Amino acid sequence: MAVHQSSFVAKTPGRGTTNVTADVQRVADASGITTGVCTVFIQHTSASLLITENADPDVRVDLETWMSGAVRDGDPKFVHDAEGPDDMSAHVRTVLTDTTVTIPLRDGKLALGTWQGVYVWEHRTSPHERKLIVTVLGE
Amino acid sequence: MAVHQSSFVAKTPGRGTTNVTADVQRVADASGITTGVCTVFIQHTSASLLITENADPDVRVDLETWMSGAVRDGDPKFVHDAEGPDDMSAHVRTVLTDTTVTIPLRDGKLALGTWQGVYVWEHRTSPHERKLIVTVLGE
Amino acid sequence: MAVHQSSFVAKTPGRGTTNVTADVQRVADASGITTGVCTVFIQHTSASLLITENADPDVRVDLETWMSGAVRDGDPKFVHDAEGPDDMSAHVRTVLTDTTVTIPLRDGKLALGTWQGVYVWEHRTSPHERKLIVTVLGE
Repeated sequence: MAVHQSSFVAKTPGRGTTNVTADVQRVADASGITTGVCTVFIQHTSASLLITENADPDVRVDLETWMSGAVRDGDPKFVHDAEGPDDMSAHVRTVLTDTTVTIPLRDGKLALGTWQGVYVWEHRTSPHERKLIVTVLGE
Repeated sequence: MAVHQSSFVAKTPGRGTTNVTADVQRVADASGITTGVCTVFIQHTSASLLITENADPDVRVDLETWMSGAVRDGDPKFVHDAEGPDDMSAHVRTVLTDTTVTIPLRDGKLALGTWQGVYVWEHRTSPHERKLIVTVLGE
Repeated sequence: MAVHQSSFVAKTPGRGTTNVTADVQRVADASGITTGVCTVFIQHTSASLLITENADPDVRVDLETWMSGAVRDGDPKFVHDAEGPDDMSAHVRTVLTDTTVTIPLRDGKLALGTWQGVYVWEHRTSPHERKLIVTVLGE
């Protein structure tokens, strides 16, 4: 049994999704671990992790459409708006999605389904550098 | 310390919840591990995992009622509808719930609360076979 | 490699958030593990875990405002109301947030971002004692 931990930065172009599946797999490769789990953690409260369809990009467009309708930027009920109308909505969107995901590792590969990809979902409208920590546990 | 990994298929009758607590416990039993964690992962983007009340089935009826109201099948704002009105809504519902859960293992048993059960939540209206991977880590 | 498991109770004052970051760190300290992961699990279906901003308390006020608007107490569509108008809404709110989170451990410390805190989100209106199990895995 062994543990391997590494971090990387995802540069986001503003609100939207960035595929980090290959970055996570790269850490798994470096670990030399073949059976176990790979946990991904994002150190932010206004960007989150997302496992969703990787084939048709319209899925991620529609996720954004749904989320923008459910959590309004600049909602007048929000008190916290120091950084603008996308500040508090970004925190709500993060809470509704994931700060951490744990993916099984099988034969050294992330055991994702055929149509699953791992994404950073940037909820702020401006570009950011987002720090992720990947921990691999297994043998 | 040891790791044990196994997969199983949950047959769903269409939209609704299927209790898989016993299936997950079975993998934990086979692992021989008594203290650690049991992580469950579903390899799909239109069905998800759910930990919720296992006593009154009305809870799961009401969860479905809430979700159906919050995420509309056939929402005209959705672009992705290749597989019908429940296609894109299933992806949104999956994102709002869980693709992966990690449950503590204590004395060889899933340390769930008295009223907690582990369910697959099928979000498509037709029956499916859903693949789950369980990884147990501990000693 | 080692595993360490411990539980604690969070006393909640009714609906709202309780910071448990120090309680979780205390279990990590006791484990003697410096590199790995720390998984937190709450054994309830009407209170959940939340990782969000720890600086401006208005963020958690606004999260509550959003959630109260999205999931109505006493929604007449709900069937399950044995314990009052906050009963079923508490189950929905739990499903939309987290029952389990996995946080990386680095140099013996929870590798949270600068602005991240770990909270119990009590969804019932009356005070409760909530049981949490922390499992630390690593070396």
